[in-house]
Amino acid sequence: MPSVDLNCDMGESWGAYTMGDDAAMLRIVTSANVACGFHGGDPLVMHKTLSMAKANGVNVGAHPSYLDSWGFGRRRLVGEDPADIEKMLVYQIGAICQMATYVGHRVAHVKPHGTLGNAAQEDDALAAMIAATVKAIDPRLILMVMPGGSLERAGEKAGLRIAREVFADRAYDDRGMLVSRKLPGAVIHDAALAARNVLRMVEERAVISVSGKRVPVAVDTICVHGDNPAAVAMASEVRRTLETSGVQVVPLDRIMT
Amino acid sequence: MPSVDLNCDMGESWGAYTMGDDAAMLRIVTSANVACGFHGGDPLVMHKTLSMAKANGVNVGAHPSYLDSWGFGRRRLVGEDPADIEKMLVYQIGAICQMATYVGHRVAHVKPHGTLGNAAQEDDALAAMIAATVKAIDPRLILMVMPGGSLERAGEKAGLRIAREVFADRAYDDRGMLVSRKLPGAVIHDAALAARNVLRMVEERAVISVSGKRVPVAVDTICVHGDNPAAVAMASEVRRTLETSGVQVVPLDRIMT
Amino acid sequence: MPSVDLNCDMGESWGAYTMGDDAAMLRIVTSANVACGFHGGDPLVMHKTLSMAKANGVNVGAHPSYLDSWGFGRRRLVGEDPADIEKMLVYQIGAICQMATYVGHRVAHVKPHGTLGNAAQEDDALAAMIAATVKAIDPRLILMVMPGGSLERAGEKAGLRIAREVFADRAYDDRGMLVSRKLPGAVIHDAALAARNVLRMVEERAVISVSGKRVPVAVDTICVHGDNPAAVAMASEVRRTLETSGVQVVPLDRIMT
Amino acid sequence: MPSVDLNCDMGESWGAYTMGDDAAMLRIVTSANVACGFHGGDPLVMHKTLSMAKANGVNVGAHPSYLDSWGFGRRRLVGEDPADIEKMLVYQIGAICQMATYVGHRVAHVKPHGTLGNAAQEDDALAAMIAATVKAIDPRLILMVMPGGSLERAGEKAGLRIAREVFADRAYDDRGMLVSRKLPGAVIHDAALAARNVLRMVEERAVISVSGKRVPVAVDTICVHGDNPAAVAMASEVRRTLETSGVQVVPLDRIMT
Repeated sequence: MPSVDLNCDMGESWGAYTMGDDAAMLRIVTSANVACGFHGGDPLVMHKTLSMAKANGVNVGAHPSYLDSWGFGRRRLVGEDPADIEKMLVYQIGAICQMATYVGHRVAHVKPHGTLGNAAQEDDALAAMIAATVKAIDPRLILMVMPGGSLERAGEKAGLRIAREVFADRAYDDRGMLVSRKLPGAVIHDAALAARNVLRMVEERAVISVSGKRVPVAVDTICVHGDNPAAVAMASEVRRTLETSGVQVVPLDRIMT
Repeated sequence: MPSVDLNCDMGESWGAYTMGDDAAMLRIVTSANVACGFHGGDPLVMHKTLSMAKANGVNVGAHPSYLDSWGFGRRRLVGEDPADIEKMLVYQIGAICQMATYVGHRVAHVKPHGTLGNAAQEDDALAAMIAATVKAIDPRLILMVMPGGSLERAGEKAGLRIAREVFADRAYDDRGMLVSRKLPGAVIHDAALAARNVLRMVEERAVISVSGKRVPVAVDTICVHGDNPAAVAMASEVRRTLETSGVQVVPLDRIMT
Repeated sequence: MPSVDLNCDMGESWGAYTMGDDAAMLRIVTSANVACGFHGGDPLVMHKTLSMAKANGVNVGAHPSYLDSWGFGRRRLVGEDPADIEKMLVYQIGAICQMATYVGHRVAHVKPHGTLGNAAQEDDALAAMIAATVKAIDPRLILMVMPGGSLERAGEKAGLRIAREVFADRAYDDRGMLVSRKLPGAVIHDAALAARNVLRMVEERAVISVSGKRVPVAVDTICVHGDNPAAVAMASEVRRTLETSGVQVVPLDRIMT
Repeated sequence: MPSVDLNCDMGESWGAYTMGDDAAMLRIVTSANVACGFHGGDPLVMHKTLSMAKANGVNVGAHPSYLDSWGFGRRRLVGEDPADIEKMLVYQIGAICQMATYVGHRVAHVKPHGTLGNAAQEDDALAAMIAATVKAIDPRLILMVMPGGSLERAGEKAGLRIAREVFADRAYDDRGMLVSRKLPGAVIHDAALAARNVLRMVEERAVISVSGKRVPVAVDTICVHGDNPAAVAMASEVRRTLETSGVQVVPLDRIMT
């Protein structure tokens, strides 16, 4: 019987600002990627998110970012020194691990956020630094990666457990990579379509590219979103479809053994 | 043979901005209170400061603050909820403990910064929350306090080890409390005078108040500053005077046993 | 025929974060208090808000704050030097006036935000500085104040035009001051009740306090909120009630002549 | 008799942090590029800097940046939308123009800071947007540019007055462009050598490249730095050398007529 994890970025509210419907998503997903204060999140939000995750039996991971509150970690920084990113990871992961311990939970995985995550898919030196830093902090941490990128290779090389992630609401190209958001059809808005795609990816361990090609892709976890009511509804539909089709939706650490 | 710790706030540089001469101070003090990113400090600065402290055999402590970069943790916030401060402490102490571990060092104490520190001297509820939070994170952590304030009482009640701190460059009143900076003579600028005062405080375990009164004060650690060359010179003179007078200058954990 | 202005804080989104439903509120109010980047708002949000206000024929004002993004200008700062606030006002008002000019609009009034606004009701020195600074920038600017506070007196003394503001959703005490939010009944949640209160305040130029007392209050403008759908609905009901009762809802500068 | 302006970035201190020796530089230069709060500077610093500039008879310009306090406007952002930068310029220039007016001074020029300035040398769309925005704000503003880049062309096309800038402490290549800081010899540390180079650039209206080639370069203003005592000494030597050689050192607007 196939199994898969459902993950969602959350804990990205900040001060007076709310981002996403974390309470709703914590009833749907099995893993939460929790912001660490550098693109979103603050100690109060982090405490609340980790506490709610624990109460819902949801696994948590660190979701570290470039230091860029205003840009929400989405501004593209180039030429950053991997040795600087190393320290930023230690700080953010240290903060969230302590907070998780404080509320009786435990950080199980790490998933880089936004343009840091994108850079880590393509920059071998950065990816190697991320993998080495995560390993030095705690070698049991699972590294969540997009299949086929630098970070997957770096994580494997470092001997970390790797969770390969696909996106419920995104189209894939013939190499099994995400279609750029700038192209038409890159983002899927139809919840039923997204759910069917996801089910197929999990059952066949492959994506069907936009051109119709079948591309083998290992799938450990499905990324869903909670930014708006439609996203929450899609996530809910994905989970329902998986479960009614006999796929077990379980936290990462029960898949990654 | 009497012994005392010398402590200094440091690691307060941020981004392109430099604050204080940390390299010089690390050759003088035995404990460094390292900023955690909320009033000063960033992951790069924190990593460098902790690494240099380790190389110099200097103990390190967390120096958490209100979240107030622009105000450097010195703006007076009133009415803050202690339950919010609790989470801010967990975040900051978690970040610095992880960074210390990462560079092979260990956080030995906690000293609240700026107006958070001041508030903790006078607000019993806040002080109790700080003591409880530090204890929950790690009961071996030493709490650095001003003698006679709320935080000292709260730390004792919580069963934490307490390090009582006096200031080398400040005048004291008849209750053994700091003379307000707004009053003349509150700050001592003469290095030799400061050094003599400190020696007497350590040897007699008392301060001589501005009115000439002898006020018993337990002294575990002396706070010195590194903001400018004159401050560095004063710190150096304090250490020299203590050592030539037979006082051992040693890290906190060798005093607090 | 009585007339009154309806005002709402807006333009408080920031980066990736959205605050309030500005588009909806701009169809209801006649004056918008636009954030200037210190508690909310950024140049992109400010440009969009001012452009939309112009398109909707809505007057705009500067809504300056303490420098406190994370705290949204709501953290209570005490002991701030009025001479520092002076410079912060010049910066924020300068930025928004230029942006208004850039989109073909014009800043008509100033309303201090959050705890800065609260402090200005009670601190004569601060209020005098705010009034003097606004006057120095542009003596035609209208100062929006709560009746009975320091800022009203300071604005009158400075010879500025004063717009006296009441709140649609708040209860008043026997002195005509707001009932503290900490007390039960301080905030009105019933839109119809709020609308009736507002109508009475405008028609009778008085508030009926929670104890039933009639307190004369000059009313130039009614503050409504757009934080959530219920608030938007209440604002809409207030406007509808005023207009169907023969009160003209018009921008401040048509009232303040 | 040849004449030239001497300019320096300043007003880049922030909160508790000091950057550069502005008081010293204001006795040396004729134009100050004043930070606007996005990479450095805050309302207090800006007020002080503009006031001191006025007292010293020094012209002032706006020195706007990407929104990046921690990175000091030096982190390389790629793919930013020029339409976003437009609003950021309006905000920053609006703020500083108001502050200048407030202290009785006047903003005479605009010089983009850091990586925004670098991008504007190479990105025609961004450069066109900057020129158009500056012109829309005030067509009398002088645009300070590096000779040979996109911003120079865009400014000329927009009909703005252009001030061409060379650097006292940098080596130039055969195209008259700056040698990359990554290459040896890119930065000149010898004050006498820098002063001789500058004199020659002004007298011959050309740079001698590192390979010995004479490259014609229009020179309206020389950029000097005040980051450290050596930089201040170099700036002083540059001015002394120019004046003793009969070059008039005067503010931009007396050159750009």
